[in-house]
Amino acid sequence: MSTLKGACIIGQSGGPTSVINASARGVIETALKNENITQVLAAENGIKGILEDRLFDCGLEDPKELELLSGTPSSSLGSCRYKLKDSDVDDTDYKRILEIFKKYNVRYFFYNGGNDSMDTCNKVSKYMQKVGYECRVIGVPKTIDNDLAGTDHCPGFGSAAKYIATAIAEASLDAKVYGSGGPIVVFEIMGRNAGWLAASSALANCIGEGPDLIYLPEVPFDMDQFLADVDRVRKEKGGCIVAVSEGIQDKNGVFISEYGSDLAKTVDAFGHSQMGGLASVLANKIKEHTGAKVRGIEFSLLQRSAAHSASGVDLDEAYRVGEEAVLAAVRGESDKMIALKRADGDEYKCDCVAVPLSEAANAERKVPESWMNEAKNGLNENFVKYALPLIQGETLQKTENGLPRFAHLKKIHP
Amino acid sequence: MSTLKGACIIGQSGGPTSVINASARGVIETALKNENITQVLAAENGIKGILEDRLFDCGLEDPKELELLSGTPSSSLGSCRYKLKDSDVDDTDYKRILEIFKKYNVRYFFYNGGNDSMDTCNKVSKYMQKVGYECRVIGVPKTIDNDLAGTDHCPGFGSAAKYIATAIAEASLDAKVYGSGGPIVVFEIMGRNAGWLAASSALANCIGEGPDLIYLPEVPFDMDQFLADVDRVRKEKGGCIVAVSEGIQDKNGVFISEYGSDLAKTVDAFGHSQMGGLASVLANKIKEHTGAKVRGIEFSLLQRSAAHSASGVDLDEAYRVGEEAVLAAVRGESDKMIALKRADGDEYKCDCVAVPLSEAANAERKVPESWMNEAKNGLNENFVKYALPLIQGETLQKTENGLPRFAHLKKIHP
Repeated sequence: MSTLKGACIIGQSGGPTSVINASARGVIETALKNENITQVLAAENGIKGILEDRLFDCGLEDPKELELLSGTPSSSLGSCRYKLKDSDVDDTDYKRILEIFKKYNVRYFFYNGGNDSMDTCNKVSKYMQKVGYECRVIGVPKTIDNDLAGTDHCPGFGSAAKYIATAIAEASLDAKVYGSGGPIVVFEIMGRNAGWLAASSALANCIGEGPDLIYLPEVPFDMDQFLADVDRVRKEKGGCIVAVSEGIQDKNGVFISEYGSDLAKTVDAFGHSQMGGLASVLANKIKEHTGAKVRGIEFSLLQRSAAHSASGVDLDEAYRVGEEAVLAAVRGESDKMIALKRADGDEYKCDCVAVPLSEAANAERKVPESWMNEAKNGLNENFVKYALPLIQGETLQKTENGLPRFAHLKKIHP
Repeated sequence: MSTLKGACIIGQSGGPTSVINASARGVIETALKNENITQVLAAENGIKGILEDRLFDCGLEDPKELELLSGTPSSSLGSCRYKLKDSDVDDTDYKRILEIFKKYNVRYFFYNGGNDSMDTCNKVSKYMQKVGYECRVIGVPKTIDNDLAGTDHCPGFGSAAKYIATAIAEASLDAKVYGSGGPIVVFEIMGRNAGWLAASSALANCIGEGPDLIYLPEVPFDMDQFLADVDRVRKEKGGCIVAVSEGIQDKNGVFISEYGSDLAKTVDAFGHSQMGGLASVLANKIKEHTGAKVRGIEFSLLQRSAAHSASGVDLDEAYRVGEEAVLAAVRGESDKMIALKRADGDEYKCDCVAVPLSEAANAERKVPESWMNEAKNGLNENFVKYALPLIQGETLQKTENGLPRFAHLKKIHP
């Protein structure tokens, strides 16, 4: 494969994770050391920053601040949710991207995100090939949802899973403090179509403080069955701890979270839209059904920003997929996403491999039914075997004065 | 003061904190070493456990498990919310307590809790004096609300404050990820009558990621002024981060959290009571007013159970008030609560002192107005100077397999 010299651009896209900046750090530090990469540019707010020429030169950043990226949640480069049109329909954006790539002699493009970002990568790469501009494009995976195809798991998932398992164990212990006849708590966890993150609450059962019932979007949700499940658990234990994916739907494909707001829309004469998500809807249903006290807890942004509780394994892998993206591109790979491939055997080990972008962009990976219990309201040991290794090891977050010390980037335009 | 030999009982009461078990550990370890204390008993579920003779012998616990109490949230002994009647009105409970005290020759009673628990301590102590049964009674303070009088601050507050400041900094950074025109987020924080914990969100401003607006129950809340405040911040910054105490009230003393449910009660023809607390109410109000996307995040149990993010200073002080309770009682003190007294000077240092129970039981300490900004929608440097030392140092939580390792007590009845 021929040597390709030029600048690179790294961008971040979609919802952040606790460790997405560790991947950015992996890309930036590796690229800065590589002799074929003449300048390391970062795009502010992903592809939007490229379109608007909002780039900054990572070579001008303090190396100590780059190190701190591994303890900094959110997307330090800035993110976007911008969908490129099909270039056959409208190639305005692509022409502009090409213009910017030419302006800075960009020959490497690394894009750090989930399904949509892999789609963006794929489109940009195809366009550059069509117009004969040599540029190697590599996707760097991230998502707390863990739904990217082609990889054993996604960087970002392990840390969110660790936070969910820890917080549910702690809060469940708290909820049970008054003894028998304890409370009912419903935890609402992110995951629109795939239930990986809600499933990770099952890890808290390894220490006896996990949910009694877990509902994933992979299985149609039946309200009557749900209430019967809660009744059964309450009869046995006094209280009941429930974990649900935000995306659970009934057999007609209606989101359960819409049950509440539909009702509110019907009855609210003042034009107020009653917010309050799935946790409230289910808490209300249980309350009506049992008369008992019910608490709904929605993890919201906390579950994807808790860098103070990140997984060491996840941080390491997030860095390595970034590092490997650069090494693979310099070796001559393009149109690939760096994936994690789990080695066989009892000891956990994952290698980085490059898989076709098209494979990752067009499929959504779900929790296998064979990893659920028979009633489909819990996970079995297959899931635990899969997920437990991903939450090992400690955060790299540095603190100063008792508070997190986030990375501060200067973001100097080249 | 005469030497008093006999057993002791330690009980926990009220809502737990991340470090209340560090105080229990302080009492138990110190009492086990003391030659005047013949047996160290713990009451399950506080005063209820005494009434029902649900006691266990701490001398039969594994010392390693007792150590783990410092990383275990919730009340490991079990808690209760049980109010003793006035003994002049109905002395049934008191007679039963005396019976249990006599049965086990209990001469020391340590009760770990907030205002109500100090009231319980006080009543038990007065009764024992009245009937001439010698028993030394010491209150061990705890509350995330930080509203106990007679002490510089309460064990439990520092850890909750550290969690709040960290989580708000992390989630705010996440919320701003798409750049200017960013979102509006309302964080709802515990604190019914005193706003200490909501105020602690201001600590995140030390690293530039704190709330733009903070509202405490100490100041009457005006909805129009609030919406004008949000407008102003949005004009300046694009987005707006808000922190509120659950207990904020309007000038007529109506809880703002009731604004939503009153409405729901009026309009809901199906008899559903719309749950969803203050964060939803305010998020809805802002949404109606601005049309912008608003996210409401309620910390709920997470803020008082996040032992994985406890403050080292808080853990140390929680242990010390427990230890000092035993030492003071053996020295001859009774009818006291162990308080923290901050030393003068720039360097933070707190000593344990014994203050009369009656002083702690009957007053509620509020955030001084002089620690707020002029507009009363934020805190000034006086508050930061007070609170920042309390969130220093790291958690003592041990982990196993990536999950918290909580203490397991055998709880063997004597």
